[in-house]
Amino acid sequence: MKIAVDAMGGDYAPEEVVLGAIEAVKAYKYDVVLVGDEKKIRKVMADHGAEESERLTIVHAAEVIEMDEHPAQAIRKKKDASIVVATRLVKEGVCDAVVAPGSTGAAVTAALLGLGRIKGIERPCIATPIPSKKGVSVLLDSGANSDSKPKHLVQAAIMGTHYAKYIFNIESPKIGLLNIGAEASKGNELSQTTYPMLEATKTISFYGNIEGRDITEGIVDVVVCDGFVGNVILKFGEGIALFIMQLVKDSIRKGGILAKLGAMAVMPAFKHLKKRLDFTEYGGAPLLGVDGSFIICHGSSKAKTIRHAVRVAGELVEEDVVGHIRSSIEEEGQEDESEA
Amino acid sequence: MKIAVDAMGGDYAPEEVVLGAIEAVKAYKYDVVLVGDEKKIRKVMADHGAEESERLTIVHAAEVIEMDEHPAQAIRKKKDASIVVATRLVKEGVCDAVVAPGSTGAAVTAALLGLGRIKGIERPCIATPIPSKKGVSVLLDSGANSDSKPKHLVQAAIMGTHYAKYIFNIESPKIGLLNIGAEASKGNELSQTTYPMLEATKTISFYGNIEGRDITEGIVDVVVCDGFVGNVILKFGEGIALFIMQLVKDSIRKGGILAKLGAMAVMPAFKHLKKRLDFTEYGGAPLLGVDGSFIICHGSSKAKTIRHAVRVAGELVEEDVVGHIRSSIEEEGQEDESEA
Repeated sequence: MKIAVDAMGGDYAPEEVVLGAIEAVKAYKYDVVLVGDEKKIRKVMADHGAEESERLTIVHAAEVIEMDEHPAQAIRKKKDASIVVATRLVKEGVCDAVVAPGSTGAAVTAALLGLGRIKGIERPCIATPIPSKKGVSVLLDSGANSDSKPKHLVQAAIMGTHYAKYIFNIESPKIGLLNIGAEASKGNELSQTTYPMLEATKTISFYGNIEGRDITEGIVDVVVCDGFVGNVILKFGEGIALFIMQLVKDSIRKGGILAKLGAMAVMPAFKHLKKRLDFTEYGGAPLLGVDGSFIICHGSSKAKTIRHAVRVAGELVEEDVVGHIRSSIEEEGQEDESEA
Repeated sequence: MKIAVDAMGGDYAPEEVVLGAIEAVKAYKYDVVLVGDEKKIRKVMADHGAEESERLTIVHAAEVIEMDEHPAQAIRKKKDASIVVATRLVKEGVCDAVVAPGSTGAAVTAALLGLGRIKGIERPCIATPIPSKKGVSVLLDSGANSDSKPKHLVQAAIMGTHYAKYIFNIESPKIGLLNIGAEASKGNELSQTTYPMLEATKTISFYGNIEGRDITEGIVDVVVCDGFVGNVILKFGEGIALFIMQLVKDSIRKGGILAKLGAMAVMPAFKHLKKRLDFTEYGGAPLLGVDGSFIICHGSSKAKTIRHAVRVAGELVEEDVVGHIRSSIEEEGQEDESEA
């Protein structure tokens, strides 16, 4: 199996991306195709004593999508951008999945234009694993779309079910609708309309509404919400983690000797929490609903994240998550009306 | 000045509410009128050795809104409910402000029906102080309404400006629009439409868009968002704080002697954080936009929260926050079209 990695994507490209790919082929059975500026990629490989091999190859791409470009316009204009070429390799069957660090907007556009949607899916979603008391919950949509419609949330629930089932090995994932109260009648127009539709969806296990504080309680395995809400929540979580780190550091700086020792002793736990609140540590977040396996990584991704993203990409392909989503959407008869 | 306190509201009524009121008249110059079941209130007062006085009086109300009742229906039906009577005391000029622990929905309905809206205001907002690296930011709307319209967010910005200015003493509070990107063109329909309207609002200092992680950074003084989003965020913050407390406790339980000492040493800092993420500690959250001073307290409020809420209620009246909001709304000409 070959994973196409956009070597030019993200704040630390190509160095960290190439390094992550080198580590990935050592750690896992999946082969990697690095896509981007061949000369630069070769330089980084040489720096790390790595050579092109059957398992680690390079496909040259002359252009790069910069972080300050308008994603959709840039993707349409730059036919030879690394992310566009990486996606094309999957479309043409040369590779099996894409790993895309960098601009979320560019990645989503490249995937939509390059792979298209699974038949019947109206809006692909980003599915982000977040920490909970019970382990990990999946939050989707965490930012591919704003102004989600009820049907988009139903499809998100179906997609999240298969992701949680096949990647996190949860037999019958419980789906929660993120809302501002437990009762079915609570919430905004979107949640009120979505609730009975989720109840009527045969291929999922719908728990009901959950509130913001239930996410980290791990009451459900999959949390479904509008992409604007999901994005704001994830970033708020990151902000709180950073805030806590500062509080711990302050108590080290200001405190007596016991507080200093104490803070140092618990520091690893909080670094761990910060990592758990940062989805890069899970190896990126899949863009579910496009017709292919596609992993988006944070712009600040370093080698370790890229390595894990290659692993998750490989698992998505092996478990045929795309195929399972396609089957469920067909079963639910969702494909009949998809015109978005 | 007299503050009407709904003695029957919240999970710990009337004990904790009455105790909070007793403490408040000792700590502050504001008088308190306890509204509710006279016999029960007297009993709690006697238990604490407190007597009715010029500064601490009782107004009997025979009914109570229970947490499991439909708020709007219950408020309309129970004319002699404690929250309804407390609000009426302000409407009739007997008291100057209401402190309402318990169901947010019941409190909002009682305030809307009993006091009405400030002329020109379409949707009152709950303004919740939340912790940031720089101190406190105000988040509104944090749950009075869902499906906010652009004009509601503009009015929220105006109301939040006066609250931050007069209660937190920030001379020219910076207003941030909660969004999923920094550029004006980013976001959902609501934020894209609201952005230029906030830019055109003369009586506020608009910073621009902020993202979820910027809330705790303290980049702005007032964060404006839809009430559904605000509510979900606040509760997610509570959940994360609880989650962190558990991690600290786990490290005490599992760790070696140094980790145990260490965790105990930093425990106060995390308890502090948990409190800062819990808006009860700020003495409740004002419902801004109703034609009177009205403080909503969490259902789990204990005496300390009630005491602080009495103080904040008194400050709201003294600083005439309602009057300042009224003037700004008139100045902005917002009253011309208010028909909601």
